[in-house]
Amino acid sequence: MYLRARRQHPASRISKLEAMNEAEFIAALRRLPLHPGARELKDDAAVVELGGLTLVLTHDTMAEGTHFGENAALGDVAWKLVASNLSDLAAKGAQSYGMLLSYSLGRDDEAFLQGLHEALSVFDLPILGGDTVASTAGRTIGITAIGVATYTPVPSRSGARIGDAIYVTGALGEAMLGFEGVEEHLDAFERPIPRYAEGPILAPIVTAMMDVSDGLLLDAFRMAEASEASFAIDSSAVPVADPQRRDECLRWGDDYELLFTAPPGVDIPVPATKIGQVEPRGFAPLFLDGHPLTSSEGLGYSHG
Amino acid sequence: MYLRARRQHPASRISKLEAMNEAEFIAALRRLPLHPGARELKDDAAVVELGGLTLVLTHDTMAEGTHFGENAALGDVAWKLVASNLSDLAAKGAQSYGMLLSYSLGRDDEAFLQGLHEALSVFDLPILGGDTVASTAGRTIGITAIGVATYTPVPSRSGARIGDAIYVTGALGEAMLGFEGVEEHLDAFERPIPRYAEGPILAPIVTAMMDVSDGLLLDAFRMAEASEASFAIDSSAVPVADPQRRDECLRWGDDYELLFTAPPGVDIPVPATKIGQVEPRGFAPLFLDGHPLTSSEGLGYSHG
Repeated sequence: MYLRARRQHPASRISKLEAMNEAEFIAALRRLPLHPGARELKDDAAVVELGGLTLVLTHDTMAEGTHFGENAALGDVAWKLVASNLSDLAAKGAQSYGMLLSYSLGRDDEAFLQGLHEALSVFDLPILGGDTVASTAGRTIGITAIGVATYTPVPSRSGARIGDAIYVTGALGEAMLGFEGVEEHLDAFERPIPRYAEGPILAPIVTAMMDVSDGLLLDAFRMAEASEASFAIDSSAVPVADPQRRDECLRWGDDYELLFTAPPGVDIPVPATKIGQVEPRGFAPLFLDGHPLTSSEGLGYSHG
Repeated sequence: MYLRARRQHPASRISKLEAMNEAEFIAALRRLPLHPGARELKDDAAVVELGGLTLVLTHDTMAEGTHFGENAALGDVAWKLVASNLSDLAAKGAQSYGMLLSYSLGRDDEAFLQGLHEALSVFDLPILGGDTVASTAGRTIGITAIGVATYTPVPSRSGARIGDAIYVTGALGEAMLGFEGVEEHLDAFERPIPRYAEGPILAPIVTAMMDVSDGLLLDAFRMAEASEASFAIDSSAVPVADPQRRDECLRWGDDYELLFTAPPGVDIPVPATKIGQVEPRGFAPLFLDGHPLTSSEGLGYSHG
């Protein structure tokens, strides 16, 4: 499949100045025909009933210059792209089924394939298909992952209820330390392991769940907004990789842990830490140690 | 989801010289864990049994500079990307179910959305999800389309049997004339209509089927190779948009017609033209008016 460019768009010079940002583009997409399973494009994945099964569908794209540098190790890029997709499936309690790859050919194709091979083998995610293209400029790599829900209703971001306890798996900030070169945390940054085993175990008991790849505070803010509640988080309760830099650990992101809520008193069947509770919606979605956070600005990583 | 680039790959300068081409990359992908439904990455789409249904999954990516120019009308790009995915589903006899979009933000986002809206409405293909990214260089746009097979076994490229008749829908070369600016064929180039209605009707009676988006001769060559037979095509029987330029019409591509084979004597339930027959494998996969064509070089559009 290919295109030859024939027609020139007369307004292209003008509209270059009018490129949308991501939020504007997604808002515009919502006015197009959406599948009910798209969850209004407000969740991390689509959830559809097909043939007696509930499928979970997600897509992540990474662009050179935005998500990875021109000298990045492409084996790590492959791994992290798989991991981020599986993290989305995990947050829905889904088991991986298969994936389609979109790949721009270029340097280090063999390193990419090696990292992809390792990730697909470790995470038991076979290739279904995809497309490769020649690229003349920056490269873009995407994966569409398909999972099968293990429990319905499939957890969403919006189900947190007042009185629920808020939990997070693992410790936050390990990827940050790995990024900075701390030896014992290198893998957390370069080869993160998503919570693909924990997601299906948690799905039946959570009221809301999402992964925290963009930073705990930002993702907690989003879950509180989606659930129309306020999240009160006790920062000292959050497990962090470096307690001296607690605040950075709560914001840096890239950790691929699961953030979830559950009714008080429910036994949590995987290692996780209670970090706060869901309260009636106050004037801010997020209260950190009692201080209201009214804007998502600066809470974590926002996409451009 | 994002990546910060930390580690530099020591061999990146060297391996820039060693980028793979598409055939080499796909050959390497085949050594990775493949789902059985991937059909060894030799078909246009994956076919999987899930629940009680057979799903067809396909992905097409288009890159600026390779598939469309920097001044291309992005509404047409959106339309053709949808059309090419639906053409792949049609060749499998599948009905469209939904799609995921990978989109690099940039100029003319509104024009893209307008063309996408038109295509999704006309073809009844709702959005399931996707991802948008900021891109600093060339843009890449991809669609993963999901269809539901209407008939099993789902047609493949490899099922042509000796003695079968070879058919093609529509007339070839219309997209070529549209590309050249011939008024009545502009739509065939800019807003092609894939054979999404014909595909499901044909699926129960064909022995092999594929779309001919890369040019009739190249795609017939590929189907003959996959079926381990020789295809004898009578060029004068092929409906073309401009008989004075018959040979170009057979090679230019971009027409999104269906090429299929069926046992002789079978009634063909949609408008289609018999253009040849399947013969025992001779020393060439393709015989055009009795002349053997032993190489796919120059038969149509090959991806870089």
